[in-house]
Amino acid sequence: MPRAAFSPREADELWHCAQALADAARPVTLASFRSATLQADNKDAGGFDPVTVADRGAEAAIRAELARLRPQDAILGEEHGTSSGTSGLTWVIDPIDGTRAFLAGTPTWGVLIGLADRDGAVLGIIDQPFIGERFRGGLGVAEVTGPHGVHPLRTRAARPLNEAIVFTTFPEVGTPDDRAAFERVSARARLTRYGMDCYAYALVAAGQIDLVIEAGLQSYDIMAPIAVIEAAGGLVTDWRGGPAHQGGRVIAAATPQIHAEALALLNG
Amino acid sequence: MPRAAFSPREADELWHCAQALADAARPVTLASFRSATLQADNKDAGGFDPVTVADRGAEAAIRAELARLRPQDAILGEEHGTSSGTSGLTWVIDPIDGTRAFLAGTPTWGVLIGLADRDGAVLGIIDQPFIGERFRGGLGVAEVTGPHGVHPLRTRAARPLNEAIVFTTFPEVGTPDDRAAFERVSARARLTRYGMDCYAYALVAAGQIDLVIEAGLQSYDIMAPIAVIEAAGGLVTDWRGGPAHQGGRVIAAATPQIHAEALALLNG
Repeated sequence: MPRAAFSPREADELWHCAQALADAARPVTLASFRSATLQADNKDAGGFDPVTVADRGAEAAIRAELARLRPQDAILGEEHGTSSGTSGLTWVIDPIDGTRAFLAGTPTWGVLIGLADRDGAVLGIIDQPFIGERFRGGLGVAEVTGPHGVHPLRTRAARPLNEAIVFTTFPEVGTPDDRAAFERVSARARLTRYGMDCYAYALVAAGQIDLVIEAGLQSYDIMAPIAVIEAAGGLVTDWRGGPAHQGGRVIAAATPQIHAEALALLNG
Repeated sequence: MPRAAFSPREADELWHCAQALADAARPVTLASFRSATLQADNKDAGGFDPVTVADRGAEAAIRAELARLRPQDAILGEEHGTSSGTSGLTWVIDPIDGTRAFLAGTPTWGVLIGLADRDGAVLGIIDQPFIGERFRGGLGVAEVTGPHGVHPLRTRAARPLNEAIVFTTFPEVGTPDDRAAFERVSARARLTRYGMDCYAYALVAAGQIDLVIEAGLQSYDIMAPIAVIEAAGGLVTDWRGGPAHQGGRVIAAATPQIHAEALALLNG
């Protein structure tokens, strides 16, 4: 889609800010991860939707950094809501995507930093502080920095679904109909895996897996992954093939071919 | 159970060897992990049981190190079978536990180094080379070394199942009866998560989660986790409460209380 152009200098400024936001969250999340005293509050009376001092503290640290670096931008965050801006740009923040994984000690949660304009995702970071791994995409950048160096991000080459790897976080997926749709894809895939939260989207961008299919997402769950995956050559849509940046039912794919093959089954 | 005593010098020698084995595997697995050219062979004509050059190469590197350091010990490895010894000790090796995770780029596979005598597990290592994290237990050792330092391993304090976190790798678990038994436990737990392979056992030892329940395991899948979890204060049995070091249906628990609560439901 057509998009407002950013000058190289603007792009540098936005990336500088995005990196600073992820850096600000790291010590906050790491202070609580695997600590003996971490407690979870439940946001869902009918289930278990945990939030911790680490979620709230990381978002507060990110907001403090934004107030300093780019007070003109709007903010949409999972824990502290929306703040308006004047620039036409919105930072879309999930301070800990995968709070259940965080509580379980699994190193596959992430800090999601997305930037959106009126057309959708501009840039994104999926940051995993415990491993020390940061996936970045947008405005000409597509790379991961981790414990074994810096590598370009590039989605996998096209392959049929029966040779593909599919991820979702919960086997239940969404509604019973959503689950049945997911299972039509899963039954044809070579391998289905669970439990990775945002890390699965990073694996699409890194060329490791072919598809992530989820339901019930929020905008802050998917804005950063959209930017990272699109920068790596993949695509992210809703289950009808439309824009995904509002959340809901989302499919991320390495190639248009496997996206089309999966979409036909989801809607079959 | 009564066990042959090891002198401090013997214990040091065995730990030196175990660490050398895990060190020998690291460059081999890391050379293939997330490489663009990694291919999987399928060991299961009726399904997908992958093995890669990394599994075979890592076990070969471990066996070469054992031939140099402790030729008197027997070896049981997933990829290259059994070798006899004269010492009464057997190294039980899974060069990559979680080959599917390895193929998907997920950093939750592990190299499992177990040592057994006739009574069961003596010591164990769960090594995650990409993160640079090594969980060790046995002969007086119970610690994890990782990207954020060295920490003692200690299982979680007792809590009822409705406050507990339960892991298994595949939602299908084992047979339909096995799955139904697992779901009786899962339905009562606060949180159920999937997809972690051996890393879930490490999380029990690290005091992060309460239970891992699996079926269809081999001895080389569980010997090292038994040693690590027992050293951290937990317990690992089969679903009847008997020894688990031969594999099969296995439950790992943080405390005797939650072990008993889960066992009653598995057999209920």
